[in-house]
Amino acid sequence: MNSTSPISLDKKTRCIHYIDQTALPNEERIVECRSVQRLVKGIQRLEIRGAPALGVAGAFGVALAALQCRKKTIGPFLEVVSRDAELLRSTRPTAVNLGWGTCRVLDAIKDAPDVPAARERALIEAEKVFFEDTACCHAIGDHGARLLTDTSTVLTHCNAGALACSSWGTALGVIRSAIKAGKHVSVIACETRPLLQGARLTAWELSRDDIPVKVIADSMAASLMCSGSIDAVIVGADRITGDAVFNKIGTYMHAILARYHGIPFYVAAPLSTFDVNRKACEVVVEERGRDEITTIGNRTYVPHAVPVWNPAFDATPLELVSGIITENGIIRPPFALTDLIRGRTK
Amino acid sequence: MNSTSPISLDKKTRCIHYIDQTALPNEERIVECRSVQRLVKGIQRLEIRGAPALGVAGAFGVALAALQCRKKTIGPFLEVVSRDAELLRSTRPTAVNLGWGTCRVLDAIKDAPDVPAARERALIEAEKVFFEDTACCHAIGDHGARLLTDTSTVLTHCNAGALACSSWGTALGVIRSAIKAGKHVSVIACETRPLLQGARLTAWELSRDDIPVKVIADSMAASLMCSGSIDAVIVGADRITGDAVFNKIGTYMHAILARYHGIPFYVAAPLSTFDVNRKACEVVVEERGRDEITTIGNRTYVPHAVPVWNPAFDATPLELVSGIITENGIIRPPFALTDLIRGRTK
Repeated sequence: MNSTSPISLDKKTRCIHYIDQTALPNEERIVECRSVQRLVKGIQRLEIRGAPALGVAGAFGVALAALQCRKKTIGPFLEVVSRDAELLRSTRPTAVNLGWGTCRVLDAIKDAPDVPAARERALIEAEKVFFEDTACCHAIGDHGARLLTDTSTVLTHCNAGALACSSWGTALGVIRSAIKAGKHVSVIACETRPLLQGARLTAWELSRDDIPVKVIADSMAASLMCSGSIDAVIVGADRITGDAVFNKIGTYMHAILARYHGIPFYVAAPLSTFDVNRKACEVVVEERGRDEITTIGNRTYVPHAVPVWNPAFDATPLELVSGIITENGIIRPPFALTDLIRGRTK
Repeated sequence: MNSTSPISLDKKTRCIHYIDQTALPNEERIVECRSVQRLVKGIQRLEIRGAPALGVAGAFGVALAALQCRKKTIGPFLEVVSRDAELLRSTRPTAVNLGWGTCRVLDAIKDAPDVPAARERALIEAEKVFFEDTACCHAIGDHGARLLTDTSTVLTHCNAGALACSSWGTALGVIRSAIKAGKHVSVIACETRPLLQGARLTAWELSRDDIPVKVIADSMAASLMCSGSIDAVIVGADRITGDAVFNKIGTYMHAILARYHGIPFYVAAPLSTFDVNRKACEVVVEERGRDEITTIGNRTYVPHAVPVWNPAFDATPLELVSGIITENGIIRPPFALTDLIRGRTK
């Protein structure tokens, strides 16, 4: 099964390479990114997206800043790199992993005695973040695979796949691990308006790996659930607070529909996504531009005078979640705060 | 308030004029339709859509067939017109009104003594269907307006407006009547994938009439409901059986979400939409082409190898419906079959 990484850091050329996800599935365009400013633009445009991938991008971004910074003494060097890290961190307010990834590398270099040592430590830590994420995804996959019967149809929303991580995926990691374990799993990919990550990315990466996948409009999920065609819903997460899961807009709807039809609703996410000392009401939900709703391809569908609402995420209360699949195992309800804090599983 | 008719029949030129709804909101293109074959194509392409408008189109189509038929004797004349009516009736299997409209005109001419009398009766009956529909929509609007408080935000799906009827609208007729009665009503229009009738048509006709409207992706409805921003959901219907409401795919999802959030869910539909001696399981749900999901404008978003599922309608069980707004009044739960058959209201 193929699930190559969507992002890599080349220290010799001081360059981050990543797949431009806005060009998929029609074109596999690789971006050569040589500055934090370009990386910030790529994250804003969603060329890179997905919570774990943003964690890796944050870590790689700080390492890139360290490689590119020309200051010779450690004080000014750390000042410049910290400023770049802050720029990166603030690019998308809802996903917690971006800040987490930048902090990991910043923390690793803050006590460095000189610039070469700081650069070296930044590179080591960034690669550690990358490889830890891959290990995490495989662990999540293996834990989650146990939840699926030998023949399962899983509905997923947006893309929590290899493209959203260093590789393998979280929600789609569970699918890949189940298939690797010999189970017959097929996937219903909700297209995920407005940016169609399900239609474009999930369908692309699963069909590339010969995993059976069918695409539906988001509003068709309820009908499929009603007809008994869905055995489980598995989604990723951008942030898990003490009371809710923040994930792509539409996730909350699927959680309610799954509950109504008696279908388990699972969230697959690394512990780096957890922010459990915060409550949902404290989280800023990013609102994105009008064009994402009004315009698809080169055509505009909403009359000019009409306003739109375009939140990127919604909050699913933990009461609607059947289990959170982490690298440590599956956390099950009731989700006691102490269990969440420790990532404790039962 | 402007709500001109989207369809008309000109007996002098033997021509049906209608707004091509696939070109909205960017272009107001009027189709001059001079044959039943062209009308069938227009209905297949959804240039004309909406249950009551299809009833009118069915009636106008049979009248057009009568105007165009060159047979001189009544027997062969009725044979040709009946064949055209059958062609029309079978164009879209789920909406009941199309068959109802064609039957109304066929029934009116079946005992005609000669061809001129049959033509005359066909025209009279077709115009009767048209004007009855307008009266129906106003009656539905006036009954439904009572359900809304002085300041309401109503969520609707697809387009059950003037464009879907002879004029005024069913679900949007309720909005128009409430505003005419001095209430402050604003509308959340779900864009309605795959064909975006909410974004294109509902937004267009409401903004043209200066009614406040905001467009969201279908998957955003749950979040708005959760935040307390929605006071009621009102949708149209393509067919109401003894146990369910068939309407645009996505309606069932909104009904479940409304129930979960304690928000009333109303269906606004003329009695011509009722088919209450049938059960939901007997109704054929039209599945439409792959392209409607994969391709938007001139761009394809789903990889070529990946299959899709594209049902045009879903079935909402009557248990999830708070009331059916008809021209006779509001039918409330429990929906006894005898009440539905007689359109009896309480």
